[in-house]
Amino acid sequence: MKILAIDSSAAAASAALAEDGKLLGEFFLNVGLTHSCTLQPMVESLLRYAGVPIRDVDLFAVTNGPGSFTGVRIGVSAVKGMAQPLGKPCVGVSTLEAMAFNVRDTDSLICCTMDARRSQVYTALFEQRAGRIVRLTPDDAVSLAELGERLRQAGRQTVLVGDGAELCFDAFRDSVPGVRTAPQTIRHQRAASVAAAVWENIDVLPLRSAEELSASYLRLSQAERERKEKMEAEYK
Amino acid sequence: MKILAIDSSAAAASAALAEDGKLLGEFFLNVGLTHSCTLQPMVESLLRYAGVPIRDVDLFAVTNGPGSFTGVRIGVSAVKGMAQPLGKPCVGVSTLEAMAFNVRDTDSLICCTMDARRSQVYTALFEQRAGRIVRLTPDDAVSLAELGERLRQAGRQTVLVGDGAELCFDAFRDSVPGVRTAPQTIRHQRAASVAAAVWENIDVLPLRSAEELSASYLRLSQAERERKEKMEAEYK
Repeated sequence: MKILAIDSSAAAASAALAEDGKLLGEFFLNVGLTHSCTLQPMVESLLRYAGVPIRDVDLFAVTNGPGSFTGVRIGVSAVKGMAQPLGKPCVGVSTLEAMAFNVRDTDSLICCTMDARRSQVYTALFEQRAGRIVRLTPDDAVSLAELGERLRQAGRQTVLVGDGAELCFDAFRDSVPGVRTAPQTIRHQRAASVAAAVWENIDVLPLRSAEELSASYLRLSQAERERKEKMEAEYK
Repeated sequence: MKILAIDSSAAAASAALAEDGKLLGEFFLNVGLTHSCTLQPMVESLLRYAGVPIRDVDLFAVTNGPGSFTGVRIGVSAVKGMAQPLGKPCVGVSTLEAMAFNVRDTDSLICCTMDARRSQVYTALFEQRAGRIVRLTPDDAVSLAELGERLRQAGRQTVLVGDGAELCFDAFRDSVPGVRTAPQTIRHQRAASVAAAVWENIDVLPLRSAEELSASYLRLSQAERERKEKMEAEYK
């Protein structure tokens, strides 16, 4: 089964192609450019140089949240656009769960983190057992202080993954013993890990049609939040 | 400092761009196509989508052996071709040392391996100490049996990296306790690790001009071996 996986949930963007668990190729960029301009050409380059026509892709996978509202929408829309004309299935994966697969060989507690702005992080904890990634906590949006307290209580060697890793490390280095960031080459969200997460859970993940695939946010967007606050103020 | 790193030492090929230790982008392919056709377009795509003109690259890095004779020559030649007209420095890195950076977060013994055919592997052992990769043995070409014996004597949890990882795992799984392969996403040679290896050792690595850069083989090529055998036979 050929899986085309993409991630554009934060500042980095990537596309990966895998077949039956084997990584055939990956194109990763972390230069802060507009994903709407770079993601599709990256996918096209990847498929062209891999010699795989898009019609040969069996499943389209994407990190559908949490993450940047615009970034997640670009990724989900790109997958919908590719899968719909081909009538191929899609699957959305938690951004936090996918990035745990960056460090699936570790014995440390895996703390996946994304910068959610306003001193908050999106986070979830995982660990590796017998080569499989096991989720310990649900995806959550919490304050940096709250996450620091959770890690202190866990009392384990902890590896920080994701685009929030440096932010957390700077906040926790003096107060939480045993935290470190994942190495630079595997610190950020990577489409290869999205493909790995899908392949490992292929029997239980719900496959969707392109029409059914949707983004999954943990918080309201800024526009929705402001609208809600405005409406609540009007009804007071 | 911007480093453009490439690897085409075996069946996979990749190009990566890094700046001061931060990975800006990577294009990886493992589909067994001819590197002479795919490597240069991969580099061009990477630089184009990263928005970095080739003249802005400060250092060109390449795995210059051990590895496939043709693959290593393609990589070294590609780097020479890019660096020479720009008058930029080059650096060759041991393929085995670079791939140790794929798993630089591990506490296990790092056994880097490449399939050298004829029941031999290219191999070297490394370990991580305080986040740095430390070399334990020189690059070597040994029989599978010899490597298995070395790992048995080491008596440690061992992670196998490189395109010889599966070959070694199949050979050692019943006879060497504690061996495992690196996860698929970071099992093979990757240019991101070449860039990481160069950045970590930038103060001690000898920089070369494009003319000085050369391949570094552990064995004679098949053609050279056959010529040597023929000449030795003639002189008997």
